[in-house]
Amino acid sequence: MKIDQIGEFGLIDLIKGRTLSKDKSVLVNIGDDAAVIKPSKGKLLIFTTDTLMEKVHFDLRYFTFEQIGWKAMVANLSDIAAMGGLPKFALVTIGLPKSVSVENVISIYDGMTAIAKRYKCKVVGGDTFFSPKGILVSIALLGEVEKSFLVKRSGAKKDDVICVTGDLGEGQAGLELLRKSPRKKSSFVRKHLNPLPRIDEARTLVKNLKINSMIDISDGLSSELFHLTQESNLGAKIYEERIPISSKCKKAGDLLKKSPLLWALSSGEEYELLFTINKRELHKLEKVKKRIKVSLIGEMVKRKEGVVLQEKSGKKRELKKTGFEHF
Amino acid sequence: MKIDQIGEFGLIDLIKGRTLSKDKSVLVNIGDDAAVIKPSKGKLLIFTTDTLMEKVHFDLRYFTFEQIGWKAMVANLSDIAAMGGLPKFALVTIGLPKSVSVENVISIYDGMTAIAKRYKCKVVGGDTFFSPKGILVSIALLGEVEKSFLVKRSGAKKDDVICVTGDLGEGQAGLELLRKSPRKKSSFVRKHLNPLPRIDEARTLVKNLKINSMIDISDGLSSELFHLTQESNLGAKIYEERIPISSKCKKAGDLLKKSPLLWALSSGEEYELLFTINKRELHKLEKVKKRIKVSLIGEMVKRKEGVVLQEKSGKKRELKKTGFEHF
Repeated sequence: MKIDQIGEFGLIDLIKGRTLSKDKSVLVNIGDDAAVIKPSKGKLLIFTTDTLMEKVHFDLRYFTFEQIGWKAMVANLSDIAAMGGLPKFALVTIGLPKSVSVENVISIYDGMTAIAKRYKCKVVGGDTFFSPKGILVSIALLGEVEKSFLVKRSGAKKDDVICVTGDLGEGQAGLELLRKSPRKKSSFVRKHLNPLPRIDEARTLVKNLKINSMIDISDGLSSELFHLTQESNLGAKIYEERIPISSKCKKAGDLLKKSPLLWALSSGEEYELLFTINKRELHKLEKVKKRIKVSLIGEMVKRKEGVVLQEKSGKKRELKKTGFEHF
Repeated sequence: MKIDQIGEFGLIDLIKGRTLSKDKSVLVNIGDDAAVIKPSKGKLLIFTTDTLMEKVHFDLRYFTFEQIGWKAMVANLSDIAAMGGLPKFALVTIGLPKSVSVENVISIYDGMTAIAKRYKCKVVGGDTFFSPKGILVSIALLGEVEKSFLVKRSGAKKDDVICVTGDLGEGQAGLELLRKSPRKKSSFVRKHLNPLPRIDEARTLVKNLKINSMIDISDGLSSELFHLTQESNLGAKIYEERIPISSKCKKAGDLLKKSPLLWALSSGEEYELLFTINKRELHKLEKVKKRIKVSLIGEMVKRKEGVVLQEKSGKKRELKKTGFEHF
């Protein structure tokens, strides 16, 4: 069905029916000028927003409508994870070209709520508008965090151990595979189309360790390491051999004649967490590593030493801010 | 200067410099994965979002970049007003085509913060991305309201008096004037380009009266009255002669050969407030009317009586949901 057959308000009613959930802390839900929420006592609010735009952030040749919604939500959930918190409430803004059907819009919402529900995050409102060129999905997310669990980018200390969760480069590998064959199915493709935010991992980390600084790797390891050093006024040294790249990812690199190391350093397709801890925390990390994959990839150094990658050969290479920039 | 000369992160640094403000309740500001805020004790949160898209919501022939930022912020501030609250924190998402310069972007932010500052509302973060076709400004706003001051659309009661603030139709008159001569300057044009949210008015209302229901007239009186009756499960009767249309607006109507009544009923360019109160509150309203302009335009009736406009001739006309719909 075409959207103009049911109109903007018909569309809003449909969305309302699919997203409305009973929650005592939501006093006013979709259907008023704004949502009204009762915040939890004693917690801090985390407030973030992230947008996906067709042809800029995703390609309809690879993505289903569900996956667009899913990925837009994950980008936001990941920001909440990076602060050590839990997501709570979302506002969803959707810009729609005339070519998109009512069913397509419902699919976008279904993808979004599928992943949001896993973390008890609720869609409480939003905005829809006509977007002449391409689909746009923008989400504003409100999360909560206990004051003692809040982690910033700026808290890294000299000699902190630099750690990273999961395996890097695989989301980018997925994208490269899709570029070669748009209908390809593999675990890497899934990582690109249906990535997972590291909320549970982040909560395990903040509950069991003193995390000095943390950031999600949504613009690639190299770029995010730069942000972290900049905000903490330090430098960093990481070791190529310690960067977690799976053997399967290396094989994909061979196959595609691309460098998995470069994927890991500059991919904009990861939602793993980069964090730093004091060396004294390392024994506690051992326990945590039984539950989540964590790799120790380097250490924080003085600012003047820069941001350096030590290659397997022993050669040191100054890292550049080679993450994904939009302009 | 072109944006690609300073890059996305250069742009973020510039924005940061212009929007950063010291506020004890903002624990993490622009520059981290998310903003972190300490909510006020005992208050409810209001959470809203609104987007302006070039060629859909505004036209660069009429609007300066400051005015785009200004109007995007006002649309959101107005939603907070409609709930009876005060705005606190904003996230700003900007989509930029290649043609937009760094100076243009700064102007958008300056327009936005100029009006936000009046209400002590702070920009604490956001997102920028490349938008191939047209400028997009999307704002997510977080406000606060005392539980006793919260007003919903759904609280109207039968026999409630329907009231409206200010004068209607003038924003639309401004737009029509601009369409005839894009450089036109007049108070109506200003109302279209630099509208004002009714936050102070809303606060005066909720502090001095028991407001049963309220909505901002951002889609025209007719459409908003429909929303209010629908959410409250009632009908409404309003009187043409009581709709506040200034004589200057009537003259503009004559000049442009358009109906100011139609502007008032279906303009998407008002930020006045439509609200209902019990008749017993009317004596209190007299005091309020010394501070803000309020007109009594009708009363809430049974649902089955529909939404009716009584014309000056005495003829009754069923009102249609003729507000602005996007699809």
